[in-house]
Amino acid sequence: MEQKKRKSSIVERRKEVLASLGDLGVRTYDQLENGHFPSIDMPSRSTENIAYDQQLRQFILGERKVRRSARNIRHLKPFTQLVWAAFFSNELSSQRKTSTLRDVYYSAQAYEMTFKDQQESNNIITDLETILGMSREDFNIFPEERSAVFGDLTIEYTVPGYEGKTLNLNSHPDGILIGPALTSSEFVKTTADKVIAIEKGGLFTRFIEENVHRKHNALLVLTAGQAPRATRHFIRRLSNELKLPVYIFTDGDPWGMHIAMVIISGSANAAHLRELNTPDAKWSGVWATDIVNYKLPTDPLDEVDMKRLSELERDPRYVDPLWRREIKTFMKIRKKAEQEAFSRYGLTYIVDEYLPAKLEETK
Amino acid sequence: MEQKKRKSSIVERRKEVLASLGDLGVRTYDQLENGHFPSIDMPSRSTENIAYDQQLRQFILGERKVRRSARNIRHLKPFTQLVWAAFFSNELSSQRKTSTLRDVYYSAQAYEMTFKDQQESNNIITDLETILGMSREDFNIFPEERSAVFGDLTIEYTVPGYEGKTLNLNSHPDGILIGPALTSSEFVKTTADKVIAIEKGGLFTRFIEENVHRKHNALLVLTAGQAPRATRHFIRRLSNELKLPVYIFTDGDPWGMHIAMVIISGSANAAHLRELNTPDAKWSGVWATDIVNYKLPTDPLDEVDMKRLSELERDPRYVDPLWRREIKTFMKIRKKAEQEAFSRYGLTYIVDEYLPAKLEETK
Repeated sequence: MEQKKRKSSIVERRKEVLASLGDLGVRTYDQLENGHFPSIDMPSRSTENIAYDQQLRQFILGERKVRRSARNIRHLKPFTQLVWAAFFSNELSSQRKTSTLRDVYYSAQAYEMTFKDQQESNNIITDLETILGMSREDFNIFPEERSAVFGDLTIEYTVPGYEGKTLNLNSHPDGILIGPALTSSEFVKTTADKVIAIEKGGLFTRFIEENVHRKHNALLVLTAGQAPRATRHFIRRLSNELKLPVYIFTDGDPWGMHIAMVIISGSANAAHLRELNTPDAKWSGVWATDIVNYKLPTDPLDEVDMKRLSELERDPRYVDPLWRREIKTFMKIRKKAEQEAFSRYGLTYIVDEYLPAKLEETK
Repeated sequence: MEQKKRKSSIVERRKEVLASLGDLGVRTYDQLENGHFPSIDMPSRSTENIAYDQQLRQFILGERKVRRSARNIRHLKPFTQLVWAAFFSNELSSQRKTSTLRDVYYSAQAYEMTFKDQQESNNIITDLETILGMSREDFNIFPEERSAVFGDLTIEYTVPGYEGKTLNLNSHPDGILIGPALTSSEFVKTTADKVIAIEKGGLFTRFIEENVHRKHNALLVLTAGQAPRATRHFIRRLSNELKLPVYIFTDGDPWGMHIAMVIISGSANAAHLRELNTPDAKWSGVWATDIVNYKLPTDPLDEVDMKRLSELERDPRYVDPLWRREIKTFMKIRKKAEQEAFSRYGLTYIVDEYLPAKLEETK
């Protein structure tokens, strides 16, 4: 592992964030000093400007731009809000404090900056992401959702008060929370040769208890349903920096399938960002064909499930023959199964039989 | 701290669980051997048999019993399910494996034991809790919800593979997950002199970043909304075993108020259990009167909120003058405020001003 190179990457990233925010400020001041109304151009996030890029294997924004200018009376408020959001993000980043979207909304009032509701402040933060090409976690605005990781990976913190301290992610057998401190840590060393991401908490605990991390040399990641963006970024780092293959295990239904897809190819909502997806990750199960082959206990797919399948069928991310086969099979059997359904063969069947078979099959 | 005594308490508890499960089995065998239909008596959990006990400061079950007997054809199925659930819990406990309610439902199929849906298997597990007077976490059936703790407390694990290993709960600045391993650990030593429980993840992170644990010698617990039972039990242990006062901070609305109340006095659903509540814990805010005194940004209370307040007004747990005053104030101002609302005075106002004032006020 090239620790030195990676080490600098987090510190560099932080400098980059501050530099980008600084640039934005300098540009605005320059415009004012030159007697111009300050303005800013950014890629449009309207649906017509979102396209799926087969090369990058994610959604991206097209060429269309929007300009927000203080000259336009209707733009004046959002422009001011944007400049404030950049200022506030700069405060957070330089003081090494974190915040949440909710907190940003209320914090605005400390500066007599008004947002009519949280949706309005969330949109401004997304504008800022679009302009900087960086996700809000980069400038220290984190989601509340919490997921976890477990296994033999030593990390080194970069947060204040913990700089230089290390932790092995097998220190706490309930799993280590993926929060701001973990997200901003450096990877120091690992003996793992793969990553296994798991949708459900119960199964994550089962895997730890059954020593899956040791038997399969794996880092285990709990996505806790749809993976929060910080977790998707974390999985991407495990894949890129440690060169580890990633296997994803979800419930056997359209929603589980899509949890895997969003880790792999990202979401349309994040078309303005580049560092959240892990294109080489594999969806290893529970497939519709697994439901058939393993004779799992099932529930019927309801109308909402079937509608979702039709949407996924038309989704440009679902072109691969494997995905098409599974969508088709779901539609044919009209059944779904949860990960826990394997317990019908005993609590450890999923670990002893299913997991090794699927890791081999999707290698 | 009397480490030795506490130490044995977890091990003793585990023995007690196995002994109780064993007793249940022996009793059933004895009945069969003596030529009787096996049967079991347990306290009724019907509403008429639930009463609030002012002494214990929690809901309890009354004298009314129900008998489930294999002689009664309508009881035969639930009786068999109950015996299976006891058998399965004994397997889990003696093999030191954990499970979830979902998993129990599916695991039954491995034994050709059928439940028509998960509700049915959940009910049987609650029957077992009622019979044993122990919560399902005692026999290794855990919820999926996850909360966290942070601060200077050294714990010693008792789970397989980690026995004798210790962890200081300030090791990971995102917080330590409260899962099966932490729940079953022994408390070794602490410098903390209080516990601060917090409803929201964003605020929990803010408190850690602002060194609340150090400035106030506190262990910080994230309840993540309504505290899972394992977390309520954990808070109770911090209160009982370490003799630490507990302060609870929630959103300023009827739902936040009730999150605090359930930690303090438990829920009617758990009237058959004794070890989940922390009667001496204090609700320190956000009170309705705080909303007024601190001039917080608010949202109006809607019809559902107002209806909830009327329910709480009639709830026997809400007799204390403080609670009555706050319910009355909420009804009068018809407004609510989130914990994040303090950010209108700056990100650290809640830590610098509000927290110390409220800790003093509710001491």
